[in-house]
Amino acid sequence: MYRTTTCGDLRIADVNKEVTLAGWVQKVRDKGFMIWIDLRDRYGITQLILDEARTDKAIFEQAKTLGREFVIQVKGTVIEREAKNKHIATGEIEILVHELSVLNKAKLPPFTIEDETDGGDELRMKYRYLDIRRNPVKENLIFRHKVAMEVRKYMSDNGFIEVETPYLIKSTPEGARDFVVPSRMNEGQFYALPQSPQTFKQLLMVGGMDKYFQIVKCFRDEDLRADRQPEFTQIDCEMAFVEQDDVLNAFEGLTRHLLKEIKGIDVAEFPRMTYDEAMKKYGNDKPDIRFGMEFGELNDLAQNKGFAVFDAQELVVGIAVPNCAHYSRKEIDALIEFVKRPQIGATGLVWVKCNDDGTFKSSVDKFFSETDLAAWAERLNAKTGDLLLILAGETDKTRSRLSVLRMEMAKNLGLRKPDEFAPLWVVDFPLLEWDEESKRYHAMHHPFTSPKKEEIPMLATHPGKVKANAYDLVLNGNEIGGGSIRIHDKATQKMMFDYLGFTEEQAENQFGFLMNAFEFGAPPHGGIAFGLDRLVAILGGQETIRDFIAFPKNNSGRDVMIDAPAFIEEAQLKELNIKLDLPLKK
Amino acid sequence: MYRTTTCGDLRIADVNKEVTLAGWVQKVRDKGFMIWIDLRDRYGITQLILDEARTDKAIFEQAKTLGREFVIQVKGTVIEREAKNKHIATGEIEILVHELSVLNKAKLPPFTIEDETDGGDELRMKYRYLDIRRNPVKENLIFRHKVAMEVRKYMSDNGFIEVETPYLIKSTPEGARDFVVPSRMNEGQFYALPQSPQTFKQLLMVGGMDKYFQIVKCFRDEDLRADRQPEFTQIDCEMAFVEQDDVLNAFEGLTRHLLKEIKGIDVAEFPRMTYDEAMKKYGNDKPDIRFGMEFGELNDLAQNKGFAVFDAQELVVGIAVPNCAHYSRKEIDALIEFVKRPQIGATGLVWVKCNDDGTFKSSVDKFFSETDLAAWAERLNAKTGDLLLILAGETDKTRSRLSVLRMEMAKNLGLRKPDEFAPLWVVDFPLLEWDEESKRYHAMHHPFTSPKKEEIPMLATHPGKVKANAYDLVLNGNEIGGGSIRIHDKATQKMMFDYLGFTEEQAENQFGFLMNAFEFGAPPHGGIAFGLDRLVAILGGQETIRDFIAFPKNNSGRDVMIDAPAFIEEAQLKELNIKLDLPLKK
Repeated sequence: MYRTTTCGDLRIADVNKEVTLAGWVQKVRDKGFMIWIDLRDRYGITQLILDEARTDKAIFEQAKTLGREFVIQVKGTVIEREAKNKHIATGEIEILVHELSVLNKAKLPPFTIEDETDGGDELRMKYRYLDIRRNPVKENLIFRHKVAMEVRKYMSDNGFIEVETPYLIKSTPEGARDFVVPSRMNEGQFYALPQSPQTFKQLLMVGGMDKYFQIVKCFRDEDLRADRQPEFTQIDCEMAFVEQDDVLNAFEGLTRHLLKEIKGIDVAEFPRMTYDEAMKKYGNDKPDIRFGMEFGELNDLAQNKGFAVFDAQELVVGIAVPNCAHYSRKEIDALIEFVKRPQIGATGLVWVKCNDDGTFKSSVDKFFSETDLAAWAERLNAKTGDLLLILAGETDKTRSRLSVLRMEMAKNLGLRKPDEFAPLWVVDFPLLEWDEESKRYHAMHHPFTSPKKEEIPMLATHPGKVKANAYDLVLNGNEIGGGSIRIHDKATQKMMFDYLGFTEEQAENQFGFLMNAFEFGAPPHGGIAFGLDRLVAILGGQETIRDFIAFPKNNSGRDVMIDAPAFIEEAQLKELNIKLDLPLKK
Repeated sequence: MYRTTTCGDLRIADVNKEVTLAGWVQKVRDKGFMIWIDLRDRYGITQLILDEARTDKAIFEQAKTLGREFVIQVKGTVIEREAKNKHIATGEIEILVHELSVLNKAKLPPFTIEDETDGGDELRMKYRYLDIRRNPVKENLIFRHKVAMEVRKYMSDNGFIEVETPYLIKSTPEGARDFVVPSRMNEGQFYALPQSPQTFKQLLMVGGMDKYFQIVKCFRDEDLRADRQPEFTQIDCEMAFVEQDDVLNAFEGLTRHLLKEIKGIDVAEFPRMTYDEAMKKYGNDKPDIRFGMEFGELNDLAQNKGFAVFDAQELVVGIAVPNCAHYSRKEIDALIEFVKRPQIGATGLVWVKCNDDGTFKSSVDKFFSETDLAAWAERLNAKTGDLLLILAGETDKTRSRLSVLRMEMAKNLGLRKPDEFAPLWVVDFPLLEWDEESKRYHAMHHPFTSPKKEEIPMLATHPGKVKANAYDLVLNGNEIGGGSIRIHDKATQKMMFDYLGFTEEQAENQFGFLMNAFEFGAPPHGGIAFGLDRLVAILGGQETIRDFIAFPKNNSGRDVMIDAPAFIEEAQLKELNIKLDLPLKK
């Protein structure tokens, strides 16, 4: 061992001890007759001291040659520090150095290894091994480890068995998003990397494994929106002989355990809300309920009063933004510009100020009386001093626009507090959703989700209205988990594939093994999967997952540090029985 | 929840309780007026009883229709059993059924769901979800979970951080064994699946992470010998600021913890043996030391005594097989046939019986005196009643042959006891090994292994003799882990790549990121990786890893259950910018 103790350990009680430390040179302060060095390792920083009077001349001179991030080993005596540093745990002592070895030199790093660095994102990613030396990144990775350990502990203590499912599986019909792997031994054939272990965990239930979990990498080759990764980690779970409430209770338990153990926070029973209610109240299936500003629908109060802009629309809906009645014309104009941006697409925004004196001032004073506006304010649960913001239009789009505005106002008002945690179950998701592009219904969750039994007949008449035994766990406006009770009989599963536009042959070819399994005694079962990257980021009080992943990829799916993906050799392609088929560049 | 309790829970103290159970029908015994059903779930078996006197007629009739593996739910009263079954935990009670629902029917399974099944390997794999219902397979998976949990607990308690490294990485020059993944977004380029997280864990050390571990899937596209899998699981570890002994001590601690916690066995300090000694004493770098039969070299005693077969050879070497002097001519002939098999390739076998009366009887009585044979016996530490078996020939091959014979004898004599555990460190492995095919030296461990510093000059003159700071952990004749102290400076790493026949361009292209990282302050570091599949199998007292993997692949790398790999659609290939390039079949 190159050290007897770490750079985070020594205290005043250790004075006079002879110690050996090893680590990185964080900083050298050379006063000519005296040199201080901050020595850093994973555990902290310890100050080293060398001076002309007490240090061997050769060592003293050598210390002057040390640069930032040099790796050194020192032997020395723990002494009490004159000027104590209360900001670090080792701040009462320093090491009077009497031996010094340079274990490795270092070139000047391309950015500073400090909590606040001067390195941009791409540079930090290219030199991720240096970025990881920085406390915030290092602490995030250690935090992630702690969360994963607690997840495993809780699940295992509750009788769940972690089972490793295979990574080399079979491509599925939604295969456009599969990464595939050519098989050398099976010419012309491909494995696929799993988008999730869905079918395997269901087979484990058929296999009687009863309670399964796994922290597992999943893969999706989709065009990367901000803050998505082609490989991501799930906490994947499944239970047999359960109904929806059993799954919700089990994973509410897990989430509560994490909040308690990791954050020290006790959370009351999680509220449950239907999908329909979430859309109506928040315009969103993952509402952030750390703050209010619930939607109020104003059709009955605001239509047919002569304001044509409202009258023609399917929905008039608003929110009361707390304490913003004082907004200036300029501030309000900025909000109007905000909702008119093409990404949001509203044509305008109606506002009403609930003045402190009980009067109202609005952009539609010409059309509505004080009494009208008072009724709106009441509907929106507004208080004196609030600002009402109202949109009108086609129902789904308008709700979605108002949801974006609600989140923007919350951000501006500092209501999205990273240290506050408001979990919520959203239940009764629709089974299907209409896809404009392919002009057919797709499974909203996945094709193994069971429709609510009593609504199955509606599949034939109003497929879009059929609800599923499907649920999401939402935390602070983020979906951190989603799952469903599954279909567990062949007839229903076949029917679902049929509704989803699979031919019998496709269904058999892709999922024959699952439907066959259902014929050999499949128990009722259901489960859930949590996105670990997102969960860890939110628990860590941050928004982006990338800082909680050791070696993330960029938005083009590249690892810029190792420069992957890359071209491979012709011989390797030949072995795999494939060749490139590149489009001609213009 | 479909049940109030499981099939493993109920005891005599529960008599008179009303319970709901769900599970699989293991067996129905229909005596006409009375029906017993064994109901099974993950936790055990509970006997159900229905009879004409006490059971509703409709339910009684329904019970007669139940088949094996039907999934049912019953409500009933716990009653004391007349004929108690001491072999199962619930054997004192049974359930008098008053409600019965069939949750799912089952076709007759293709093999029996019993501890000893009538299903062959391929059938069991095709219906793995049924195989998993069998106790031995189910218990193996639960055992694996327990081992993995204990590994994580120990590592985490000892300050190791589990960091997830990426699965989509870059192909390496030994890339023939890489699985590759075409990138859709980066045309014509490929990711590779990791054969191990080697470079990433080294970068974590450069990043100051200090103590890393990960239980992680690795991938190798090699022709599958028996009991290898294209995807396998490693316990991967790395430590900074350590020397070889520190790594050995840390992972001896882990192994001892597992033996204690999982098997209840206390093991003394693990013996350490050099590679050279292991080869000399056991002809093998992973010797099984649960039993003796150490090699004894007889050149000085057996050569130049007129037996030409020995005289011409590089090595004469033997073992003393305990208590086998009584072997018949036929038994000895079988051993001779054994070593002459082409897989072993010896040309003959010399034997000496150490008779109970102190005399010797051998196949070479004509050439050697009793005194000669007594000297051999002494050299081989033989006791009266032992059988000496002696081979001669070229050193490496002869040792290897005798090693196979030693293991065969141990197997025949029942010395390879599955409940006995004899760990051993083998250290000081050679740095390089000669490859006949490519006519050059390859890294024996991998190109990042550091040569012993004092032997570096020998690289130029006797590269095959240079030893590395490399070590294996051997358990009961199996390599369960291997590792090394790594190179941590660019100059040495470049030199190694040069010795291994990399051009400067290849080295830069493939491992430039690592060599660059070494220039920014890399600490001394080293580590180890354990094969989890093998470790679990050995701890479980078994030889094959496949029974400890939920969904294993067969020897052609196929998952016969889901039928993967498989052909994919033309459109999907097009999206990935590749096409098939199949050899013409003759």
